[in-house]
Amino acid sequence: MNRRMVFFLVGQILKAEAALLALPLIVSLLYKESGYLSFLITIGIALVLGFGLTLISRPKNKVIYAKEGFVVVALAWLVMSAIGALPFVISGSIPSYVDALFETVSGFTTTGSSLIPDVEGLEHGILFWRSFTHWIGGMGVLVFVLAVIPNFSDRSIHLIRAEMAGPIIGKLVPKAKQTARILYLIYIALTVIEMIMLLFGGMTPFESAVHAFGTAGTGGFGIKGDSISGYSPYCQWVITAFMLIFGINFNLFYFILLRKIQVVFKNGELWAYFGVVAVCTGIITFNIMPLFEGFSEAIRHAAFQVASMITTTGYATADFNQWPELSKGIMFILMFIGGCAGSTAGGLKLARVIILFKMIKKEFNRMLHPRSVNVVKLEGKQIDAPILETTGVYFALYMISIILIFFVLSFEPFGFTTNFSAAVSCFNNIGPGFDKIGPMSNFSCYNDFSTIVLTFAMLLGRLELFPVLICFSPSTWAKK
Amino acid sequence: MNRRMVFFLVGQILKAEAALLALPLIVSLLYKESGYLSFLITIGIALVLGFGLTLISRPKNKVIYAKEGFVVVALAWLVMSAIGALPFVISGSIPSYVDALFETVSGFTTTGSSLIPDVEGLEHGILFWRSFTHWIGGMGVLVFVLAVIPNFSDRSIHLIRAEMAGPIIGKLVPKAKQTARILYLIYIALTVIEMIMLLFGGMTPFESAVHAFGTAGTGGFGIKGDSISGYSPYCQWVITAFMLIFGINFNLFYFILLRKIQVVFKNGELWAYFGVVAVCTGIITFNIMPLFEGFSEAIRHAAFQVASMITTTGYATADFNQWPELSKGIMFILMFIGGCAGSTAGGLKLARVIILFKMIKKEFNRMLHPRSVNVVKLEGKQIDAPILETTGVYFALYMISIILIFFVLSFEPFGFTTNFSAAVSCFNNIGPGFDKIGPMSNFSCYNDFSTIVLTFAMLLGRLELFPVLICFSPSTWAKK
Repeated sequence: MNRRMVFFLVGQILKAEAALLALPLIVSLLYKESGYLSFLITIGIALVLGFGLTLISRPKNKVIYAKEGFVVVALAWLVMSAIGALPFVISGSIPSYVDALFETVSGFTTTGSSLIPDVEGLEHGILFWRSFTHWIGGMGVLVFVLAVIPNFSDRSIHLIRAEMAGPIIGKLVPKAKQTARILYLIYIALTVIEMIMLLFGGMTPFESAVHAFGTAGTGGFGIKGDSISGYSPYCQWVITAFMLIFGINFNLFYFILLRKIQVVFKNGELWAYFGVVAVCTGIITFNIMPLFEGFSEAIRHAAFQVASMITTTGYATADFNQWPELSKGIMFILMFIGGCAGSTAGGLKLARVIILFKMIKKEFNRMLHPRSVNVVKLEGKQIDAPILETTGVYFALYMISIILIFFVLSFEPFGFTTNFSAAVSCFNNIGPGFDKIGPMSNFSCYNDFSTIVLTFAMLLGRLELFPVLICFSPSTWAKK
Repeated sequence: MNRRMVFFLVGQILKAEAALLALPLIVSLLYKESGYLSFLITIGIALVLGFGLTLISRPKNKVIYAKEGFVVVALAWLVMSAIGALPFVISGSIPSYVDALFETVSGFTTTGSSLIPDVEGLEHGILFWRSFTHWIGGMGVLVFVLAVIPNFSDRSIHLIRAEMAGPIIGKLVPKAKQTARILYLIYIALTVIEMIMLLFGGMTPFESAVHAFGTAGTGGFGIKGDSISGYSPYCQWVITAFMLIFGINFNLFYFILLRKIQVVFKNGELWAYFGVVAVCTGIITFNIMPLFEGFSEAIRHAAFQVASMITTTGYATADFNQWPELSKGIMFILMFIGGCAGSTAGGLKLARVIILFKMIKKEFNRMLHPRSVNVVKLEGKQIDAPILETTGVYFALYMISIILIFFVLSFEPFGFTTNFSAAVSCFNNIGPGFDKIGPMSNFSCYNDFSTIVLTFAMLLGRLELFPVLICFSPSTWAKK
C-alpha cells in the first residue's frame, strides 16, 4: 500500500478542516462569545498536525488504487472527527470527550443523533460548528479536498467511489477533480437557495444557515429542544421540500443544468423515490388525522416526517412516538430504505432496493425456467454480475451489522424498541429512534461503551461498511 | 404446467392425511373421549376429496418439473392444513376456523405458536393430533407421500427439493424414493429413541409421545401452560439433547449409518452449529446465574433455551422474557440463524449464514484486488455462482418478508417488540416471541386479520418462500 500517499492525504484533510473551522470562529467572534478560543486552539492543532503529516510523508508517487481509496476515506473521517470534537470539549459545551466524539461523528456522518440534554443553552459558534459538520459530511470530506486541492492523479476517482454512497458511482465528466467541483457547486447553490427561502419565512440569518446545513447534509441537528416544531408552517414546508431535494441523486441536477431533462424523467429511482414518499405521506396523513386539527395540519406533519425519514435527515415537527402503530411501522420501514444513490442521504439507498427487487424477480424466472437467460436492467442499462453480487453481499453485511450493533447494545437495560431503533437509526444515519430515543429526546441515556459502539455504527453506515472494515483489517497494513 | 399431475398428487396427499388421522382417532377411542367423532368426520371428508381428486385428474404423463414441484408443495400444505384444522373446529376445542387454521399451520410448519388460552383443558386425542402435525410437517408431507406411494418418476426429486429446507439439497442415493425412505426411517428411529428415554424420566406414554413429536419436528407444542418447566431436570436435558439432534442435517445420520464418520467430522456446518450453541449457552449461563439457584440450574435453563431457539423448536423451561437484555439479545439473534440445512429446523439455516459470510469475505478480496479470482467453498467443494446468487437473493427476500409481515401487523396496538418478534417468530417457525407473546403466553391477542397474516407467514417461512410465491403468482396458472 502507498502509505505515504495515505498519510499525505490525511494531512491535507486536516489543513482543510482548519480552514473550515474558520467559519464557526467568525460566528463566535461576531456574537462576542468566549467559545472563539476553543476554535482557535483547535485550528492550531489541526494546522500543526496537518503540516506535520504532509511534510513527513510527501509521497514519491501519487498513484492510489482501490485499497488506498478505502483506507484514506476511513482514516480521514476518523481524524476529522477526532479533531472536530475538540471545540465541544475545550469550550465546555460537552465535557466528556467520548460524548463530544459521538456528537461530532453524528454531525459529519449526517446522523443528527445528539447527546446534549439542553441544546438551547449552547453558544452560537458551537451550534454553528455542530450544524456545519452536517454540511461538510453530506457531500464528503474527500470530495471537498479533491475539489479544492490541485494536482491529483486521475486515479482519485477511487476516493469519490469510496466516499460517495450507492451501488454505482460514475464520473460526470472524465476528470474526477471536475466531477468533485461540479458536485460541490450544485451543493452550495441549493444550500444558498434554501437559506434565502428560510429567511423569507422569518428565520434569523443564523437560524436559516444552521437549518440549511442540517437539511443539505440530511443531518438533522437543530437548535431547539423540539427540533422544527416551533417554526412556521411555511418554514416546515420549505424544509420538507429541501430534504426531498437533497435526497435526489446529484447527477440528475447536473443533467438538469445540461438541459437533458429526458434523462431525469427516465430515471427509475427518482420515480420510485417520489412514489414511496407520496404513498407513505398519504397513508400516514389519514392515519394521524384524529391527532391534529384538520387535513392541512395532518398532511404537513406526515410529509415532513416521511421526508425526514426517507432522506435520513431526522428533523421532526411532531413526536411520531405518539402516533398509531401503522404510522410508526411505515416510519420504521422508511428508516431502512434511505434516499437515492449519489445523494447526501443515508440508508440502503433506493437504487439498491430496486436492484434487490429485480434480482428477486430474476431468481423466480431462473427457478421456473432454469435454462432461460435473465438479465437485470437499471435505467435501461444491463447491470453486470459483479454489481449484482456486490449489492447482494452489501445487503447481507448491512443486515448483519445492524443485528450485531443491536446485540452489543443489549448490555443496556432499555428494552428492545429503544436498542434496536438506536442501532437502525445510527447505522442508517437518521438521528432519532423510537421509545427512549424518540425525536423529542436524545441519546444521553447510553453509557460510554454504548456511545462508542454507536459512534462506530454511524461511521460504518455513512461510509457504507467497506472502507472502515478494510481500514481496520490487519492484512491491509501488513508488509508483503 | 402439468395440472393433472398437480391435482393428482394433492389427492394422494389427502388420502395420506386420512391415514395419518387414524392415529389420533385411536388415541381418542383409547381414552374414551367424545372427540373421536371429529376425527371420523374429518377422515371421511379427506377420503372423499382425496379419491375424488385422484379419479378426476388421473395424469396422462407423470413428469413433473421444477414449477410443478413448487406448486404441488404449496398446494399440498394449504390443503393439508385446511383439512387438518377440522377436528379442532368440529370437536369445539377451537371454535373459530381462522384460529384452528392458525393452530394447524403452526403445527405442520413446526412453528408451535398457539392460540389456545387453556391447553390443559383439551382432550388427549386433540392434543395428540396437535403435536402429531409437528411430526408430519417436520420431515415434510411430500417426502412422506414419496416414501409411501409407489410408482413415481425420478423427477420427483423436485418435490424433495421444494419441500426440504436449505441452500443445497442432494440425493442420498440415486433414486428420490429411496432417499425419502431413508430420511423417514432415520426420523422414526430417532423419535422412538427419544420417546423411550422420556418414559425412563417418568413421563406417561402419552406425554412422551407428544413431546417426542414436538421435539422431532422442532415444533414446540406442549400440553402444559408452562411448556416443559414442570418436568424433571432429566427430561429437560433429554429434550435439550434431542432438539439439538433434530437440528442436524439428516444426511449426516445416513453417513453415520454407513460408518463414514470422517465425512461427519469434516462437516463445517456441524462444527459451526455446536460452536454457536456452546458459546451462547456459556454467555447466557453466566448472565442468568443470579436468577437461579446455582450453576447447574442456570446452565440447564441456558442450554435448553438456546437449543430451543437455534433449532426453532420453541419449548421453554423458563420465561426468558424476564432475563437480562444481553440474554434476550442472544436469543433474538438465534431466532434468525436456525438449525442446519436438511434438518427439521427452521430459520435461515446455518449453511446459508456460512455461505453469506464467505461471500462477504470474497467481496472484500474482490474490492482490494479487482483482478484476482475468488471462489467460495463449502465442505471442500466450490459453490457455483447460481447458488451464491440464490443465497444472496434468498437472504434479501427473507429480510424483506419479515419487514413486510411486521408492517402488516403494525395495525395492531401491541407495540414494536411484540409485533416484530411475532413476525420473526412465525416466519422462522419458532413459536414464542417477546413481550405479549412470550414463552408463557400465546397469540390469542391478535385479531382475525393478523392471525391470517401470521398463518401465511408460517407457511412462507417453512416452505422457504419460493413455492408459496410461485403458487400464488398468476403467471404460473396462465395457459400458454
